Amino acid sequence: MKKIAILGTGSVGQTLASKFVTLGYDVILGTRSVSEKLSDSTKDSYGNPPFREWHAANNTVKLATFREAAASAEVLVNATKGAGSIEALKLADLKSLKGKILIDVANPLDFSKGMPPILHSELANSNSLGEEIQKNFPDVKVVKTLNTMWCGLMVNPALINGGDHNVFLCGNDSDAKAIVKGILKSFGWHDGNILDLGGIAASRGTEMYLPLWLSMFGATGNGAFNIKIVS
Amino acid sequence: MKKIAILGTGSVGQTLASKFVTLGYDVILGTRSVSEKLSDSTKDSYGNPPFREWHAANNTVKLATFREAAASAEVLVNATKGAGSIEALKLADLKSLKGKILIDVANPLDFSKGMPPILHSELANSNSLGEEIQKNFPDVKVVKTLNTMWCGLMVNPALINGGDHNVFLCGNDSDAKAIVKGILKSFGWHDGNILDLGGIAASRGTEMYLPLWLSMFGATGNGAFNIKIVS
Repeated sequence: MKKIAILGTGSVGQTLASKFVTLGYDVILGTRSVSEKLSDSTKDSYGNPPFREWHAANNTVKLATFREAAASAEVLVNATKGAGSIEALKLADLKSLKGKILIDVANPLDFSKGMPPILHSELANSNSLGEEIQKNFPDVKVVKTLNTMWCGLMVNPALINGGDHNVFLCGNDSDAKAIVKGILKSFGWHDGNILDLGGIAASRGTEMYLPLWLSMFGATGNGAFNIKIVS
Repeated sequence: MKKIAILGTGSVGQTLASKFVTLGYDVILGTRSVSEKLSDSTKDSYGNPPFREWHAANNTVKLATFREAAASAEVLVNATKGAGSIEALKLADLKSLKGKILIDVANPLDFSKGMPPILHSELANSNSLGEEIQKNFPDVKVVKTLNTMWCGLMVNPALINGGDHNVFLCGNDSDAKAIVKGILKSFGWHDGNILDLGGIAASRGTEMYLPLWLSMFGATGNGAFNIKIVS
């Protein structure tokens, strides 16, 4: 059975987990503290129900610590909040995990200056979260993808425009990118709509797109949109 | 006769000037020094021929100082290099020009760290060129638009995908945005493809999109592309 570990239990992690379950994966979700996560009865900052309600309805998904989750699979997903991703990946002991693939779907949003969020200044323009993760964990193959859209579209591109719109990926390892591309195709992404932007430094572009995404979201009032490259 | 002043004589300024001429405008281009500009026989950094060759072939376009150009029209275009825009607009004496519309099509690209360029750090993330211009010249109505694509598409959207792709605009003055929208429509932009992102702070998003644009340009090798929002 194919295994995947998803670090982060928010709506992005939950959405990805549910999709991987339907695709027949053995899914393990990583969190800081299993007991705290399962006893937490508060809604998240977006008003979503507590994790334990989702987990009760999706009980084939295992919950474990970041470290246990990361150790259990060869392909990992970073779905933690971007501001805390490096810290979470340190807890996951990513340094010891040579050769594993890390699919980074997070964005380094900074909500501390009010809404709409900006990007963390040390992770923007001349740097990015994708690059920072790769620098901190050089033995892990980081592939940045899916961070340019609402999570409902990540796993179900057919929801809009017959699935005809674009997803980007970048990373320094070609084999890792090929595996991630296979996963994207299993989500329903058309081969020709998956645009490889090159090395992990291209994370800057896809992360810096977020303020425009937020503006478009504000103007249209609906997250179920994406961009399609036309030429 | 409708008048328009374009500040900046590079390929963007030239492309816009030619289009406005075909639309029947009286076009005046602003530059730092008319005599220096006309005596310059060097190609620009992109390998384009010197301005005077273009000007010889487009001799209905007047060339003047930034200040004379800005004084001559009610609608101005900032097509200077983003890194020097504030300085150029000070030379244009924009402070004295109450109520005029400034269409800002520039991006604050910083080439000093090598290629691809990044954004000027003081004009990104928590600020933008569009906002900085508006702050420096509060009596001018700044409308940011057209900065998300190759200049050939700005004035000829029909070049790709039957003209069906998106252009953004933002600014604090609704009447100014309506006038600029009219200009965009005269360029061939479909009404439904012009997305108003709100106030001038939305410049952040459209300027921070540039690194992704540069990545897509690098991946596709052709500037004649744009994005279309699908939902």
